Amino acid sequence: MTTLQNDLLLRAARREPTERTPVWMMRQAGRYLPEYRAVRAKADFLTLCRTPELAAEVTIQPVDIVGVDAAIIFSDILVVPEAMGMTLVVEEGKGGPQFPTPLRSLDAVTKLDADGAADRLQYVYDALSTTKKGLDGRVPLIGFAGAPWTLASYAVEGRGSKNFETIKRLMYDEPDVLHTLLAKLTKVLGEYLVRQTQAGADIVQIFDTWASIMSKDSFLEFSLPYIMQIVEHVKSHTNVPVIVFAKGANSSLQELADCGADVVGLDWTVDIGEVRDIIGDRVALQGNLDPVALYSAPENIRAEVRNILTWFGNHPGHIFNLGHGILPTVPPEHARVMIDAVKEISREIRAEKND
Amino acid sequence: MTTLQNDLLLRAARREPTERTPVWMMRQAGRYLPEYRAVRAKADFLTLCRTPELAAEVTIQPVDIVGVDAAIIFSDILVVPEAMGMTLVVEEGKGGPQFPTPLRSLDAVTKLDADGAADRLQYVYDALSTTKKGLDGRVPLIGFAGAPWTLASYAVEGRGSKNFETIKRLMYDEPDVLHTLLAKLTKVLGEYLVRQTQAGADIVQIFDTWASIMSKDSFLEFSLPYIMQIVEHVKSHTNVPVIVFAKGANSSLQELADCGADVVGLDWTVDIGEVRDIIGDRVALQGNLDPVALYSAPENIRAEVRNILTWFGNHPGHIFNLGHGILPTVPPEHARVMIDAVKEISREIRAEKND
Repeated sequence: MTTLQNDLLLRAARREPTERTPVWMMRQAGRYLPEYRAVRAKADFLTLCRTPELAAEVTIQPVDIVGVDAAIIFSDILVVPEAMGMTLVVEEGKGGPQFPTPLRSLDAVTKLDADGAADRLQYVYDALSTTKKGLDGRVPLIGFAGAPWTLASYAVEGRGSKNFETIKRLMYDEPDVLHTLLAKLTKVLGEYLVRQTQAGADIVQIFDTWASIMSKDSFLEFSLPYIMQIVEHVKSHTNVPVIVFAKGANSSLQELADCGADVVGLDWTVDIGEVRDIIGDRVALQGNLDPVALYSAPENIRAEVRNILTWFGNHPGHIFNLGHGILPTVPPEHARVMIDAVKEISREIRAEKND
Repeated sequence: MTTLQNDLLLRAARREPTERTPVWMMRQAGRYLPEYRAVRAKADFLTLCRTPELAAEVTIQPVDIVGVDAAIIFSDILVVPEAMGMTLVVEEGKGGPQFPTPLRSLDAVTKLDADGAADRLQYVYDALSTTKKGLDGRVPLIGFAGAPWTLASYAVEGRGSKNFETIKRLMYDEPDVLHTLLAKLTKVLGEYLVRQTQAGADIVQIFDTWASIMSKDSFLEFSLPYIMQIVEHVKSHTNVPVIVFAKGANSSLQELADCGADVVGLDWTVDIGEVRDIIGDRVALQGNLDPVALYSAPENIRAEVRNILTWFGNHPGHIFNLGHGILPTVPPEHARVMIDAVKEISREIRAEKND
């Protein structure tokens, strides 16, 4: 195993002291980079996910181009329901991946194949091991998966939705069917993340994007318990840190801090300093610049970075990130401004406070 | 002045004891009602807003049809920028009202006419006084306005937006221009709400829909101070209670509780009981059923209503509402189930706790 030359992310995730704050960006391997678009011109989205050499190439790009402190494997959260038997389709220019035949009955849920699903995702593990070789120890490699609630939402709605009427009707009117679906997804996801670590992931993140649409009691019943099972599974089979990002679940930050994860991700609507005061140092925090701030002028990006670093303060356990994925039309040089600012200003803050 | 036969809403807003919890729904005069659609078949949206008899008719409909404890004047928040000189357009089937020529410069902001704007909204005051007569004291009449931040967002973006890049760039890069715009809107909005109360509004609500897209520090700089100025203006010129609903501003509930308003509205992502515990009895709370819950079966709607009433507990100062506007495809009988459940279960809870 190659020793990491830059393990800031892993140390911050474990709340160990670091000489500066590590930084990466959700969706950092993506459309805002011309180099990514050049690869995508040769291969459609799902081919890119399924071709380890290409996935590795775009995964490593932002490490070289914008200087992030970690690589996150290029993939999609929806490959898991696909591996369980759902048909996944991506039509160019028609938004993200979709399931043209969404789950709408207990029968359809029963037919989902959980048993061999983690095996059918071998191409993801191959992409991880290929990336790992390509990185050659420069920065840690992040594996990831969607949370059961978010995957269930896509599987039942078929695609992103404005009001998520179908999944919520299932939640209110047939909670047992939903629990059956969530349990099946949970089983696959735990195994999937462990296999990702075996293939080279140094840390894993669970994305619960659609936590944002839930009431607190729904989140505590239909999302968090399943996330906790996955975290527990990963923790009992590996030594890697786990990040949980439940977007918009800001009423449940205390509960998230106790879910077993090492790091809790924050969207941009909360004050990271206040959150740290409330939940203390039980977990590290990741976040939380508004992705839209990257459209502003460089001096204003730097000012926003300084605010977040200052609010968090000179404590261990901060991973700088956006509060959601980087937007496709952000100029790459603005991403670079943010990343350089995090590196420079966080060193400065460490020095000031230690005088 | 007619004495109100049902003043539950006003008493709850002032945190006085009530024999049961009052209930109304945001967007209750709207498309989910066949009776509303029948009126709309005769007049387009803006004509409806501008014709006092028609506006009064649809405003009163939900009082008769679903039994809410208040009427809210049928209007649109964007009539205010229109009265300041912007062209407002509603194309059928193309989403909500839009400004085809959005504000994009200090020059455009300077040209907005704040001085006579409140006068040019006479049709709203006429709709209120016509409605007031039609209600004949049955329930209180709610006036409303958009918050400066939300109106500025529409004025600058031109319409609803996914990421609100334009208004946020203005916020980061030209904050003085944005402050100028917000101050102009604030001046008109304070006057507009006072005039609404003179025309018959018994209580007013300020809607800050797009608070949901802001970081906490942005909300505290670009939204809340202007809301506070409006509340102060209304309070110093009238005796009506004020409701502030800043959707998604859940990191700033403490600050909202101190903004001078009598009632703070909550979206459905927070636990109303927890919020009450945190902010105490400084203000009344309004909310907070997930609007999508109204698609579920009647017994499940009743269960959700019971949860919220139970979490809030047997204290004065709760106005039951959805956590956002009622959705256009909800069956009216489901709205009625919710309203009846609030009336019945809240009486039950009062009785239980007083035994």
